[in-house]
Amino acid sequence: MLNRKVAIIGAGATKYAMHFTKSYYDLIAEAYRNAISSIGPEFDPKRIESAWLATVMKNPIHGSAITQATGLIGLASTRVENMCVAGGDAFRNAVLGVASGAYDLVMVIGAEKMCEPDFEAGGRAAFGWPHPEADYGLSAPGILGMYGSRHMYEFGTTKEQMAMVSVKNRKNAVGNPLAFFRKPVTVEDVLKSPKICWPFNLLDCCPEADGASCVILASEAVARKYTTKPVWVRGVGMATDQQSLSDKLSLSEMLPVILAGKKAYEMAGIGPEDLDVAEVHDCFSITEILLYEALGFCEKGKGGPYIQDGNGYIGTRLAINASGGLIGKGHPLGSTGVGQICEVFWQLRGEAGDHQQPNAKVGLQNNTGGMAFSCSAVNIMSV
Amino acid sequence: MLNRKVAIIGAGATKYAMHFTKSYYDLIAEAYRNAISSIGPEFDPKRIESAWLATVMKNPIHGSAITQATGLIGLASTRVENMCVAGGDAFRNAVLGVASGAYDLVMVIGAEKMCEPDFEAGGRAAFGWPHPEADYGLSAPGILGMYGSRHMYEFGTTKEQMAMVSVKNRKNAVGNPLAFFRKPVTVEDVLKSPKICWPFNLLDCCPEADGASCVILASEAVARKYTTKPVWVRGVGMATDQQSLSDKLSLSEMLPVILAGKKAYEMAGIGPEDLDVAEVHDCFSITEILLYEALGFCEKGKGGPYIQDGNGYIGTRLAINASGGLIGKGHPLGSTGVGQICEVFWQLRGEAGDHQQPNAKVGLQNNTGGMAFSCSAVNIMSV
Repeated sequence: MLNRKVAIIGAGATKYAMHFTKSYYDLIAEAYRNAISSIGPEFDPKRIESAWLATVMKNPIHGSAITQATGLIGLASTRVENMCVAGGDAFRNAVLGVASGAYDLVMVIGAEKMCEPDFEAGGRAAFGWPHPEADYGLSAPGILGMYGSRHMYEFGTTKEQMAMVSVKNRKNAVGNPLAFFRKPVTVEDVLKSPKICWPFNLLDCCPEADGASCVILASEAVARKYTTKPVWVRGVGMATDQQSLSDKLSLSEMLPVILAGKKAYEMAGIGPEDLDVAEVHDCFSITEILLYEALGFCEKGKGGPYIQDGNGYIGTRLAINASGGLIGKGHPLGSTGVGQICEVFWQLRGEAGDHQQPNAKVGLQNNTGGMAFSCSAVNIMSV
Repeated sequence: MLNRKVAIIGAGATKYAMHFTKSYYDLIAEAYRNAISSIGPEFDPKRIESAWLATVMKNPIHGSAITQATGLIGLASTRVENMCVAGGDAFRNAVLGVASGAYDLVMVIGAEKMCEPDFEAGGRAAFGWPHPEADYGLSAPGILGMYGSRHMYEFGTTKEQMAMVSVKNRKNAVGNPLAFFRKPVTVEDVLKSPKICWPFNLLDCCPEADGASCVILASEAVARKYTTKPVWVRGVGMATDQQSLSDKLSLSEMLPVILAGKKAYEMAGIGPEDLDVAEVHDCFSITEILLYEALGFCEKGKGGPYIQDGNGYIGTRLAINASGGLIGKGHPLGSTGVGQICEVFWQLRGEAGDHQQPNAKVGLQNNTGGMAFSCSAVNIMSV
C-alpha cells in the first residue's frame, strides 16, 4: 500500500505527428507548458521537486534534458528507459516519490523524436541488438505476429476481429485533436491495406510519431491547494518476464501484463469490472485483443468475440482507447504511457471533448513492451 | 522527509576489470548472487518486489535484463539511464520505493560492459551527439579540463595537487580486491604519464571497466528479520542544471553537486563534519578537488591545499574514496554509483578489510556526470 495519497493535478501534451520543425527539447517544453497552464496561473513550477523523463530512442539522453528545456535548475530528474513501458513506469516511480514523503510536487514527462535521421540507427538497435533472437528477424511485428498466429490457432481469432480493433481506435481518434490519424477506416480498408507480416496488414499496426506528454503529481495537501478536481492514483503495478521468446511459458497470453495488472488491481482494491475507461497498449491490433484477456476485460481466448460483439467503444460499459490508442493516436515510445495517463486524467475530469466516455469515474493505463514483450506497467486512477 | 526508515541489508559486486569472458547478463547475475549470499541462506530472493537497473552504455537495455539474468519472473524492474549518475539515482528511486510503503524489499543493480566492440559507438554517442557543444570537441576530458584550467586560474590549484588525488586513490585501491588498478603510483608517475588534454595526464583519468554491483534494501521490519547490522539510508539528494557549458553560471564550482548535497544533508540532518567515509565521483583528479568543495569538505577554492595537507586518506578524519575511487577501482558507468554504495555499506559494517576506515559510522556517496556535468546524486547512510 502507498503510505499517502497521490493526485494528478495537471496534464499537457503535444499533438502526435511528424514534428520536423520541433526539436526534442521543443516537444518537452511544449508538453510542460501545457501541463502547468492546465493548473492555473497561481501554480509556481519552481516548486516542482523531482521529475521523471521517459525517453527510449534518443540516446544518450538523461534527466537534465528536462532542466535544459524548462530552465528548472536544481530539479532532481531521472531518465527511465524501459522501452515501450517507459512512460507508465516513469509514472510509477513518480507516484512512489510522492508517497514516500520525500516530495510533495513532482512531474513526469515522456518525449520522443521518432521521425529523425538518427532514429533509424536507434530503431535498428532497439529491436535488434542485443536481443538473442534478433538474428532470426524478430522485429516487433515479427514477435507479435507469432502471438497473433498462436491466438488464431488456439482460439479461432480472425483477421476480421483484429481489424475491428483498428476500426474502433481509428474511429475514436477522429474525435481527438492530439491524434495522428483522424480519418476513420473500415474492416475492408484494414484487410486490403499492404501486408506487413502475417497476420498483420499495415492498418493493424500503430504509426510511429513524434510527441511529448506531461503530468504533474502532488501529495493530497498540495493537490487540494491547486485544484478542486484531483484525479487520485489508486494502484501502480509493473512486472517483467524473460527476454527471449524461447523462454516464454506461453505465446497465447502476456504474462507480464497479467502480473502487472494483478498488482495494480490489488493495490487499488479495484477490479476490471469497476473501470469506465482504459488506455491500453495497442501497438498492433492483436495486442489489444491479448490485453482484453490479460487485464480481465474478458476471459482468456475470448478477446476476438469481445471486440466483435461491440465492446470497447465509447458509450459502452468500458471505453477502451477512447483517445484512439496507439493505432489512431500514434506511438512516440516514451511519450505513449504518459500520454495515456493524460487521457485518463481528462476522461475522469470530463474534459475529453469529442471522445469523452460519459460519466467516467475510474480509469486504467497500460504499457506493454520490451524485448519479446517482457515488460508491462498498469496504473489505476479514479476521481 | 521519508515516511519510513529504509535499510541496506546486503551488497555484492564483481571485480572491475576487462571481463572479456563474461557477458552483461553474467555480470548482473554475479553481483546479484554475491548480494543475496551476503544476507545469508534464510533469505529468499523471490521476495524481492521491485528492482532498479542502472546501465548507461548498452542500449537498448531495459528492466527485464535483471529478470533474464536472475530468473525472478514477475519482478517490477525499472532501467535508469542517467549517464554517470545512473547508479546513485537508481538507488534514490529504490529508497523512495521502500519509503512509499509500496515495497518492503527491493534491489538496485548497476551493470556495464565498457570493453566490448559495441562500446565504441555507444561511447561516441554518449559524449557526442546530441550535445550542442560536441562539435567543438567537448568530450569528458575536454569539459573537465576547462573546469580544471579555471580552478588553476582562480585559486592557484596545481597539477601536483591534482596528482595527489590519483596517488591517494591508487594507494587505497591496493587494499581493495575488487579494484582494477592495484599498483600504487607517485606524483612523479602521474606527471610523467602521457598527456591527454590540458591539464590531465593519463593517470589523472579514471579507467573504463566492466563490472556490476548490487545492493538490497528493505523496510525496517523486514531488515530486522534478516540482519543485526542494517545500514540506514539517512538522506537522498539529486539535482540537475543545464546541459551546455555555455549556460553554466560558473566553471569553478559544480552547481548540481552543491544542490544535491544540500538536499541530502538536509534530509539526513547530517553535515559534512559528521562523515567518516565518502565515496565520490573522481572521474578525473580535478573532479575530486571540485567535489571536496561542493560537498563541504573544505571551503571553495581550497580543494588543492586540502589534499596537499594530507586530508582524505584512510585513517584521517574523513576517508575519501577508500575503495580506490573511479581512478583506482575503475568506472563502469552504471555500476559505479551502486558500487560506491556497496563500499559505504561495507565500511559502515567494518567489513572493508585492507581498506577499512577505522570506526566508520556515517558515509556519503556521490555521482556526478551527464552532458556538461549537469547531474549529481548524493546519498547519505549511517549505522
